[in-house]
Amino acid sequence: MKPGKFITLEGMDGAGKSTQLEYLTALLQQKRQTVVVTREPGGTALGERLRALLLDQSSIMHPETEALLMFAARREHIDKVIEPALRTGSWVISDRFTDASFAYQGGGRRLDWNKLALLEQWVQGDLQPDLTFFFDVPVEIGQQRVSTVKTPDRFEREQHDFFQRVRNAYHVRARQFPERIRVLDARQPVNDVKAEVAGIIEVFFAGRLP
Amino acid sequence: MKPGKFITLEGMDGAGKSTQLEYLTALLQQKRQTVVVTREPGGTALGERLRALLLDQSSIMHPETEALLMFAARREHIDKVIEPALRTGSWVISDRFTDASFAYQGGGRRLDWNKLALLEQWVQGDLQPDLTFFFDVPVEIGQQRVSTVKTPDRFEREQHDFFQRVRNAYHVRARQFPERIRVLDARQPVNDVKAEVAGIIEVFFAGRLP
Ligand SMILES: Nc1ncnc2c1ncn2[C@@H]1O[C@H](COP(=O)(O)OP(=O)(O)OP(=O)(O)O)[C@@H](O)[C@H]1O
Ligand SMILES: Nc1ncnc2c1ncn2[C@@H]1O[C@H](COP(=O)(O)OP(=O)(O)OP(=O)(O)O)[C@@H](O)[C@H]1O
Ligand SMILES: [Mg+2]
Ligand SMILES: [Mg+2]
Repeated sequence: MKPGKFITLEGMDGAGKSTQLEYLTALLQQKRQTVVVTREPGGTALGERLRALLLDQSSIMHPETEALLMFAARREHIDKVIEPALRTGSWVISDRFTDASFAYQGGGRRLDWNKLALLEQWVQGDLQPDLTFFFDVPVEIGQQRVSTVKTPDRFEREQHDFFQRVRNAYHVRARQFPERIRVLDARQPVNDVKAEVAGIIEVFFAGRLP
Repeated sequence: MKPGKFITLEGMDGAGKSTQLEYLTALLQQKRQTVVVTREPGGTALGERLRALLLDQSSIMHPETEALLMFAARREHIDKVIEPALRTGSWVISDRFTDASFAYQGGGRRLDWNKLALLEQWVQGDLQPDLTFFFDVPVEIGQQRVSTVKTPDRFEREQHDFFQRVRNAYHVRARQFPERIRVLDARQPVNDVKAEVAGIIEVFFAGRLP
């Protein structure tokens, strides 16, 4: 059996991650792959409890505490979901992963990039996604798309500056890992973004699973 | 105003930490010091939520997840309680601190000692207790003392071997930091242990606060 691959979807709220995740899942299933869909923070029972704590508007915490909790949830996520699925040959698609920690805690909260890299190494060792889609939209557009949907959580309540730093940090990460992270212009109509996703997956599939 | 000092109490369940903590607090208050009493895991609102999660018998987690959560709670504890109190000249007495992570996660769960040291450095930087009491008892004696009191939490349910490794790891830590960590024979009657605590505090007080 061919080994599974690990794909992550990144971008700010309203960028279209959930929309494209659904499409990507269907695409891989058409290719007869077993797909495990998951998300961060969360993905495990403990992770969902931590997610609630992290997103709770009444939670007050130091940015470093926030980063440690994100990576604690991630450690669990890797151990209970990601690694077991990959071992059995499934594909894992995660709605957000470590690039989001660099974007939100690093960019947004201005946490030291090197300290985040230390945690990444501590928790992940060699594990990295095989492919990452970064759905890039200007802050205003993302916010407009989600504004009517739900009440804002602890991150969504942040100001414009914060999100601008998040977006910039995603771009820094993308330049650091140009092979792994594909930047998509998510201002385009849904179907155009889907077409790009499909194109990348075709190449990825062909190259990696001959 | 003389700067406050940071004192931690360590040892296994039933060693007598809570008993001696009460005594130590009274002792320092007699010396007209402001004393802030706290505990780990916990010490803050978020920390107590994490404590509940860590001690909950139904929580299942990887040992590294456990360590990350302990240090997340600690990061918050330092930021919200320990550092502010020390800055205003209070003494801080904590029922457990980082030596417990080396004992329980390092010794008990066999987590890599160097990985714990990396987290310690990440979270604490230069911060270390000024003085630590390690109340040392054989596993059986500690367990007898607490056995009737309450239903066991996630750590207390562990087996004899686990606690033996915890005790050994405390001793390793004590040998690594012979200046800071004072090992007391906690098999002695309560009053004899108190007398030793008082003696150490007299010397510490005299030496540090002339
Ligand atoms: N390319 C697009 N153009 C216009 N609207 C879009 C596009 N992609 C998604 N949307 C719409 O924007 C809204 C948010 O999309 P989606 O939930 O997929 O984003 P998200 O990145 O998952 O956001 P969140 O981080 O909040 O979960 C939805 O109503 C969706 O239909
Ligand atoms: N030196 C001692 N000799 C005999 N009994 C003791 C001694 N010290 C404490 N005890 C008793 O043992 C029990 C446990 O003591 P204590 O609660 O102080 O321990 P602890 O280290 O705080 O335990 P835990 O980690 O469970 O909180 C109490 O009933 C206490 O009165
Ligand atoms: Mg979504
Ligand atoms: Mg106690």
